[in-house]
Amino acid sequence: MQESKWWGWGDPEVTFGLGNRPGLVRYLRDRFGVTETSAPRRFRVEDVALPPSALPKEILAGFRHVLGEKRCRTDHDARVRHSVGKSYRELWQIRNGRLGDAPDLVLYPRNEGEVAEIFSLCRTHRVAVVPWGGGTSVVGGVNALRGGFPWLAALVTTEMNRLLEVDETSRTAVLEAGASGPEVEAALGARGFSLGHFPQSFEFSTLGGWIAARSAGQNCLGWGNIERMLVSVRVISPMGEIRTLEAPNHACGPDFKQLLLGSEGTCGLILSARVRVHPKPERREYFLTAFPSFHDASEAAREIAQSVSGAALVRVSDEEESVASLAFSDKGGLSHRLLRAWLRWHGLSPESRLSLLLAGFEGADFSTSSVRGILSRRGGVSLGRAPGRHWLRDRFRLPYLRDDLMDQGLFVETLETSTLWHRLPALYESVRRALIDSFRGQPCSVLTHISHLYPDGASLYFTVIGRAANPLEQWHLTKHAASDTIRKHGAAASHHHGIGTDHREYLSWGPLERGLFRQIKATMDPDGLLNPGKLEP
Amino acid sequence: MQESKWWGWGDPEVTFGLGNRPGLVRYLRDRFGVTETSAPRRFRVEDVALPPSALPKEILAGFRHVLGEKRCRTDHDARVRHSVGKSYRELWQIRNGRLGDAPDLVLYPRNEGEVAEIFSLCRTHRVAVVPWGGGTSVVGGVNALRGGFPWLAALVTTEMNRLLEVDETSRTAVLEAGASGPEVEAALGARGFSLGHFPQSFEFSTLGGWIAARSAGQNCLGWGNIERMLVSVRVISPMGEIRTLEAPNHACGPDFKQLLLGSEGTCGLILSARVRVHPKPERREYFLTAFPSFHDASEAAREIAQSVSGAALVRVSDEEESVASLAFSDKGGLSHRLLRAWLRWHGLSPESRLSLLLAGFEGADFSTSSVRGILSRRGGVSLGRAPGRHWLRDRFRLPYLRDDLMDQGLFVETLETSTLWHRLPALYESVRRALIDSFRGQPCSVLTHISHLYPDGASLYFTVIGRAANPLEQWHLTKHAASDTIRKHGAAASHHHGIGTDHREYLSWGPLERGLFRQIKATMDPDGLLNPGKLEP
Ligand SMILES: Cc1cc2nc3c(=O)[nH]c(=O)nc-3n(C[C@H](O)[C@H](O)[C@H](O)COP(=O)(O)OP(=O)(O)OC[C@H]3O[C@@H](n4cnc5c(N)ncnc54)[C@H](O)[C@@H]3O)c2cc1C
Ligand SMILES: Cc1cc2nc3c(=O)[nH]c(=O)nc-3n(C[C@H](O)[C@H](O)[C@H](O)COP(=O)(O)OP(=O)(O)OC[C@H]3O[C@@H](n4cnc5c(N)ncnc54)[C@H](O)[C@@H]3O)c2cc1C
Repeated sequence: MQESKWWGWGDPEVTFGLGNRPGLVRYLRDRFGVTETSAPRRFRVEDVALPPSALPKEILAGFRHVLGEKRCRTDHDARVRHSVGKSYRELWQIRNGRLGDAPDLVLYPRNEGEVAEIFSLCRTHRVAVVPWGGGTSVVGGVNALRGGFPWLAALVTTEMNRLLEVDETSRTAVLEAGASGPEVEAALGARGFSLGHFPQSFEFSTLGGWIAARSAGQNCLGWGNIERMLVSVRVISPMGEIRTLEAPNHACGPDFKQLLLGSEGTCGLILSARVRVHPKPERREYFLTAFPSFHDASEAAREIAQSVSGAALVRVSDEEESVASLAFSDKGGLSHRLLRAWLRWHGLSPESRLSLLLAGFEGADFSTSSVRGILSRRGGVSLGRAPGRHWLRDRFRLPYLRDDLMDQGLFVETLETSTLWHRLPALYESVRRALIDSFRGQPCSVLTHISHLYPDGASLYFTVIGRAANPLEQWHLTKHAASDTIRKHGAAASHHHGIGTDHREYLSWGPLERGLFRQIKATMDPDGLLNPGKLEP
Repeated sequence: MQESKWWGWGDPEVTFGLGNRPGLVRYLRDRFGVTETSAPRRFRVEDVALPPSALPKEILAGFRHVLGEKRCRTDHDARVRHSVGKSYRELWQIRNGRLGDAPDLVLYPRNEGEVAEIFSLCRTHRVAVVPWGGGTSVVGGVNALRGGFPWLAALVTTEMNRLLEVDETSRTAVLEAGASGPEVEAALGARGFSLGHFPQSFEFSTLGGWIAARSAGQNCLGWGNIERMLVSVRVISPMGEIRTLEAPNHACGPDFKQLLLGSEGTCGLILSARVRVHPKPERREYFLTAFPSFHDASEAAREIAQSVSGAALVRVSDEEESVASLAFSDKGGLSHRLLRAWLRWHGLSPESRLSLLLAGFEGADFSTSSVRGILSRRGGVSLGRAPGRHWLRDRFRLPYLRDDLMDQGLFVETLETSTLWHRLPALYESVRRALIDSFRGQPCSVLTHISHLYPDGASLYFTVIGRAANPLEQWHLTKHAASDTIRKHGAAASHHHGIGTDHREYLSWGPLERGLFRQIKATMDPDGLLNPGKLEP
């Protein structure tokens, strides 16, 4: 796997590109007074201040004995790159030289035996461990926290990235946890299969990270979130190994797999997993529909989730996100002018009031007619398949935009939650209100979409762009405002990003759940070496 | 809820009826030498020997203070009825006066407050507790075991059986745990909804029992097993309450709901649950298809599970079960003779070699064409919808047959497991062989079907009917033979019956899983009051 920019997202050579997007430039000017769109900023890793690793030579020698020199790094570059994940707060800190801490060493084991030896050395020498997949956590899940231990290691899984088995009969495959999205799809694709897990972080996140943080991809409606894909998992902890039962379903007591899902590196290292796969889709059909209001579009989405099967994706943008995304995709060409005219013709206002619903199908043989029927019966205006094709092409491109916006000095954070359908409208209004209020009159946009649908509820995904005099303080205000509102509504502290450091205090666990987690952790990691300071409230 | 026969299954006035089933009578005669089919046996509860409850008056007074006299029973009848569940072994024991033990008192709380007071009294007076729903466990889950405590109570949930909320928007409902299958469907049905959970024990089992033992119903393919239906659950333990998050999905760390699912009364009492519901199906279509072999029929079922959605049920009987079920349903009429002629016409032998696949659809608007397409492409011979209608009519009738067979002195046990598709054929052959071998030449029939399908695997359900000189010893031999084989194949110790006492030693838990369970139990039930001797290996 190629390494991501450490000061932002993704391939250093790729930018979202403000240059050829007049609609976006206009949006930023009108909303945030951005007047000049400079070239992307570059950062030099040498400029990041970090005291050298103080790890005693004897301890280092122990690890080197197991892994060799190359897979046991203490150099500045490796340490900076493994100090933080990809939340706005972390990127702001690393860009501004405010790195809290960094691991003393960065380890790249290749197999279970090496991990077992690492754990044993860590126990002996009191080295805390941050399990590290792609490092794409946006909730502080891979932050360099020592939790009182003198030493800290990042345990990187990316050298364990092989496809171990394809079982065509049961349509399952066994993969090592360090395989990244593209590696998973390439290996399976060569055998005619696909996992179909496409988080927006697809290019850099890993199977192990998905499981550890209960990830949900864009095609969750079709293939399920990672939880539904996971048949069984193999985990090694300082106290030994767990291999969960390989069965499609069981009545064998509590399901331990469900303790490892979401364990966020605090209980053990996920080594490999058996997942459900499906034949590589032969064709895709994504199409966009416009509605007069978010309410109308959401109701259509709910009807789809509750009565039709077969769609791979349905997502619904609220009015503000719909207007913004039309603006962002406006490259000044004819097609965009036609699109706006078409919308106006249907009584919709592309500048102020409309709600976009994207629906997608994948497979060999599917029918879109039930979904199309619901959309048109509920007053949707079809915008056709071209916007669907664009979305598919750019689906992993959007994350790059954050860097451009940060380069412009803007605040950009995303957060998400989930609840039952009947509680969704109130939750939406309240979180939106809380986010806006947290900016205390400074300019801010809150773009929202329903990202994942279920028969009984859905997730809400908020993107906040704003101007903040003090970004760090603003981050805390905004995060607290949203998370506290979410908790008060009884909604999920996170639907798919996880808990990490950022959502710890907002977990809805009662004293018994806290007790349960403490005991589970104590059973698997009695010294508390693994990812201290994460997850547990 | 009406009470079941304590010496067998269901309504004392209902029998499967050997009388008007010449095919079944012939089968029993040919296979097991049964020559005379006497009237159903009756048992008198007074004949069951049981020392009176020795519970000290002061302790009893404490419980009566909370529940009153009527809901705190110590009479012979209540104690006998709450001494065992419904496994063959238990029924054989109770029919033959070999009752091991019985609870000293039987408690019927009506709300959480009463349960909390019961737990507190139980801790003070060292009274072990068997949580008791419908008592339909077939794995020893409700056996009267004291686990070293001087006193034992059965804590019966059936007075907590209300529908608390219907949320039409999210299509969820909140129900108390003691509601039985018919109570659940009646209450929801009055509001136009259905849960769609139809275990064969439907008439007498409860929502709480389904959750506690990870039940799977006959329409699992359509609506999922109880795990998939469960949005959230409320549990009270001696250490307090847990209410799990009410969200369709979350990334909030380990999923504690999945520890309560399958907890089998060992960690707390399930009080109520929010479950997914769906509109009451407007119509149903069930149809039967015959294949030349179990292999052919299984492959068709696999293709359905992996490529078609919308079916509510698919089950596949192996050759021996197919032949037997044709015989059992033969009432000597014309239609049956025609059926046999039709099968022979298609080259199938109704007396020896064929495999029956039942498919069912439910809803307002479904299409059976994809499934029918697969069935006919794979060589299935359609037997039409009449057998489907009969199956629906008799679906909860079959359990009554066991009593008739036991009356004839026959051994009848069922067991089930699940595995991945590619391991299913070998598992099937081995378990079947082990079951037959366990009878050491005595006559026995092993009837098998695939009861639940998933894209990645399926469950196998075995019914063993045999002649045994020593039924109890035979039960141990047979149980061990099957369970040990299942474990060796890495398959599930149970797919939907649970663990109870009978599968404890066959759980595939390693030392870490055992440690995890012990700590979970210690957190919720530190005194070990709850269902001692169950679940934990
Ligand atoms: C631009 C962007 C878009 C995103 N979009 C999505 C999205 O659409 N859907 C979604 O679900 N998430 C999304 N995320 C969040 C993130 O990608 C997910 O949380 C992902 O699952 C993390 O995978 P990773 O391999 O990068 O894990 P990391 O970030 O390395 O780690 C995440 C957590 O898992 C632990 N961990 C990692 N690997 C292992 C292992 N093998 N064993 C045990 N613990 C381990 C870590 O200690 C940490 O606590 C996005 C993030 C970014 C930056
Ligand atoms: C004829 C027959 C057919 C069957 N068919 C099926 C089938 O198709 N599918 C299937 O899944 N099962 C089937 N079973 C097994 C049984 O019905 C299930 O295990 C069912 O889930 C038990 O429900 P119950 O209410 O009877 O629970 P019980 O038998 O009373 O209890 C089962 C277990 O759960 C615990 N428990 C019960 N209620 C609670 C509660 N409120 N809180 C905490 N713990 C509790 C008990 O302590 C016990 O450990 C069948 C049984 C019979 C006899």
